[in-house]
Amino acid sequence: MSKRPLFYSAFVMNTASHVLHGLWRAPDAQNHRFNSLRHWTSVAAEVERCGYDLLFFADVFGLRAPWNGSWRKAVEGGIQVPVNDPSVLASALAAATTDLGIVFTSSIIQDHPFNFARRMSSLDHYTEGRLGWNVVTSFNENVFRSFGHDGILDHDARYAWAYEYLDVAYKLWEGSWDEGALVQDKKRSIHADPAGIHKINHVGERYRVEGPHFVSPSPQRTPVLFQAGASPAGQLFSARNAEGVYISSPHPAAAAALTQETRALAAANGRNPDDIRFAQGLSFVIGDTHREAVRREDEIKRYLDLEGVALHVLGDAGVDPGGRSLDTPLSELGEFKGVRGYARWAAEASGNANPTIRDLAWVMEGANRVVGTAEEIADYLEEWREAGVDGINVYHATVPGTFTEVADRLFPTLRERGLIATEKSGSLRHKLFGRGDRLPDTHPAAAYRGAFADNDLHNGVVEADSVGAPA
Amino acid sequence: MSKRPLFYSAFVMNTASHVLHGLWRAPDAQNHRFNSLRHWTSVAAEVERCGYDLLFFADVFGLRAPWNGSWRKAVEGGIQVPVNDPSVLASALAAATTDLGIVFTSSIIQDHPFNFARRMSSLDHYTEGRLGWNVVTSFNENVFRSFGHDGILDHDARYAWAYEYLDVAYKLWEGSWDEGALVQDKKRSIHADPAGIHKINHVGERYRVEGPHFVSPSPQRTPVLFQAGASPAGQLFSARNAEGVYISSPHPAAAAALTQETRALAAANGRNPDDIRFAQGLSFVIGDTHREAVRREDEIKRYLDLEGVALHVLGDAGVDPGGRSLDTPLSELGEFKGVRGYARWAAEASGNANPTIRDLAWVMEGANRVVGTAEEIADYLEEWREAGVDGINVYHATVPGTFTEVADRLFPTLRERGLIATEKSGSLRHKLFGRGDRLPDTHPAAAYRGAFADNDLHNGVVEADSVGAPA
Repeated sequence: MSKRPLFYSAFVMNTASHVLHGLWRAPDAQNHRFNSLRHWTSVAAEVERCGYDLLFFADVFGLRAPWNGSWRKAVEGGIQVPVNDPSVLASALAAATTDLGIVFTSSIIQDHPFNFARRMSSLDHYTEGRLGWNVVTSFNENVFRSFGHDGILDHDARYAWAYEYLDVAYKLWEGSWDEGALVQDKKRSIHADPAGIHKINHVGERYRVEGPHFVSPSPQRTPVLFQAGASPAGQLFSARNAEGVYISSPHPAAAAALTQETRALAAANGRNPDDIRFAQGLSFVIGDTHREAVRREDEIKRYLDLEGVALHVLGDAGVDPGGRSLDTPLSELGEFKGVRGYARWAAEASGNANPTIRDLAWVMEGANRVVGTAEEIADYLEEWREAGVDGINVYHATVPGTFTEVADRLFPTLRERGLIATEKSGSLRHKLFGRGDRLPDTHPAAAYRGAFADNDLHNGVVEADSVGAPA
Repeated sequence: MSKRPLFYSAFVMNTASHVLHGLWRAPDAQNHRFNSLRHWTSVAAEVERCGYDLLFFADVFGLRAPWNGSWRKAVEGGIQVPVNDPSVLASALAAATTDLGIVFTSSIIQDHPFNFARRMSSLDHYTEGRLGWNVVTSFNENVFRSFGHDGILDHDARYAWAYEYLDVAYKLWEGSWDEGALVQDKKRSIHADPAGIHKINHVGERYRVEGPHFVSPSPQRTPVLFQAGASPAGQLFSARNAEGVYISSPHPAAAAALTQETRALAAANGRNPDDIRFAQGLSFVIGDTHREAVRREDEIKRYLDLEGVALHVLGDAGVDPGGRSLDTPLSELGEFKGVRGYARWAAEASGNANPTIRDLAWVMEGANRVVGTAEEIADYLEEWREAGVDGINVYHATVPGTFTEVADRLFPTLRERGLIATEKSGSLRHKLFGRGDRLPDTHPAAAYRGAFADNDLHNGVVEADSVGAPA
């Protein structure tokens, strides 16, 4: 398999408690300063200094399911509530850095694609081609009910929506402006060439978008496309569209199966299987000796909010414990999504044949955590690389502490071992693929290049009744 | 009338050619660098250094009506096309400045109010309370057709939409979180107080929004609200909601009538008439002598794009000259909105009883331009102040050249004359009104403070079928 260096993503959310719940209470944690611009510009500058390739913002903007009948625990624990919008941070982060990739999550429910495409193109200009978009369809009842829906749309309807949403964005990003149409020639008095700018006249199930795109071509045109959906529909969506796929496999062998399957699916959909980069989510606790690493993990666990972890995991599976304690066996919670897998996993880890909510929370909070010396961790990362993984998405306990610590204690060894790149410049797409700023020709978005040549802004008006899909 | 200093707004658009069309071609003009983040952070830093109170972004994101049957002239002249999104610049501008107000335009057609309110609250945190929002309803056919509508909605429908949009935003900004609900107490393990956070359960004609707002209270909560609509419906909307009203009166007497009328309308709607600040749009050409000023104005006119001006003015009035030259009399263009006023104005200024398109363009491009010595201009600004105007919205020829020149050549005299404030710190609302960061109690948004006390996140779940307006 590949001997390329891995890429490294610093994984955050614009909130106090992202994954390792409770750690915001640690004395050195700055996680709770998410309302401060200086906090975020410092985090970005530090993450760049440390040698990460990109800063990746997850996002949530609705309440999870109730827990014990209310949102008391979620709010008191700061379990992904409140969460500020990450998109409005991007330009400040760009100004505070020079090479760092800046990736954030935006759901198709949030924004109209005409407006979203304009925002992203503006940001791809302002980041000088360092922008990435994590495409998500929301799965949260409260979100749907804050956007005018009666409740959550089903999985198939959400993916149908996502395909059309991308289609509109692709048309605007790749098809609406020809290369070189922004002329800006003061002497010839030509700011832009009307023959090189085109309406897209999209007509679909959900959207009708005339265009043209109102932003000139940015360095990458389409921002680098990330996706993390693990369902079959999500995997197909990734295989067709994504350039970065974030996975959370339990071990390298599982990752090998998943990456091979997704790459094969990409090839079956006409893409080059090497046009997708996979990043495995991991957290690290590093010691000079293995024993020191274990001791340092115990320090982290002191601040852990186990009920917050249980709420996050079981709440997303639709479980409300109804006032029962964390010592309640999972078997008393009835049927819920994934129950057998969770129970087996919790039983293996705890040695308890009838594992409790607490047993599950312990195993979940430690999932994908790697504890050891830098050499031990480097060995393990080689296993992930052998499994076809291209990058590591680094979870944090504290912000920015974890990112600094990983860089100081782990990255030097990874550099010696060829597991981290030393050269980190250019557009985000170039950094990840090493072959320029733009999408390859086999990506579906590329089909819209030149597709709207007839609808240019020079040759007169498209009449209202002729608006339709291009010939 | 008032002897307060005036406030000063640097008026820009994220595009090459905003108002004084053609000036982007001037050798020192940097207007065309709108795709560069460094350009905008430099402009913001310079405008702050110069002593302006705020940087104000107008915005447009659709084509104007065709001109001679196509968009050729608009695109070649860069007449407000392309235009980047201003909202994604705000955090970088905040990071580049410490006191400057940052105001941008966002239309109700662009964003869902739940998403918009979240973005603005995030930005009000990141600007530390320096954010303002210019509320607009789009009036542009192409915009409506890029957002799925068949065509433009009529005036009344747009304002009805705008009232509901503001209503949703007010509920989220003012009513969803109690003061102090963001606790962030590490020792007590309480990140936020669920009893102080409320769903809003908005149900209206166009929107259903459950909430809660997903961002904690920002310094100003509601960003400072600007409006510029000149129609009777726009004036009523301002009187009810706006804190900053941008006007473009032909002379101080007209401004006096307008400001008095709007303030009276505000009082009739339960507001304090002093809770609105009016800014008159003006551009300046300054000389050490009057003659030098006139000579400098001639330099500006050398770069003027008269056809671009004609397109901007007449295109917005629904006129397409159909290939006729600029020397065509207005009387040959048939009926259009405002034709009699334009014709009278052009005749007076040109001395031509049957004025042409060119005559109109000349008078329009010079409208609201003040040419003279600093002392002459200061005298004139005193007339505006006497007329009840509170601030000046400074149009530019070149960016950032005009703003620097006005500051260097005019502001020292204005300081001597008490026409510009020397103290410029605090939130934008505090800067404009001098009485704190929050909306006054008589503003309609204030009615939502405490209005959702029953829907808190502590006391259990609001069932799906009980969603409705709060009791």
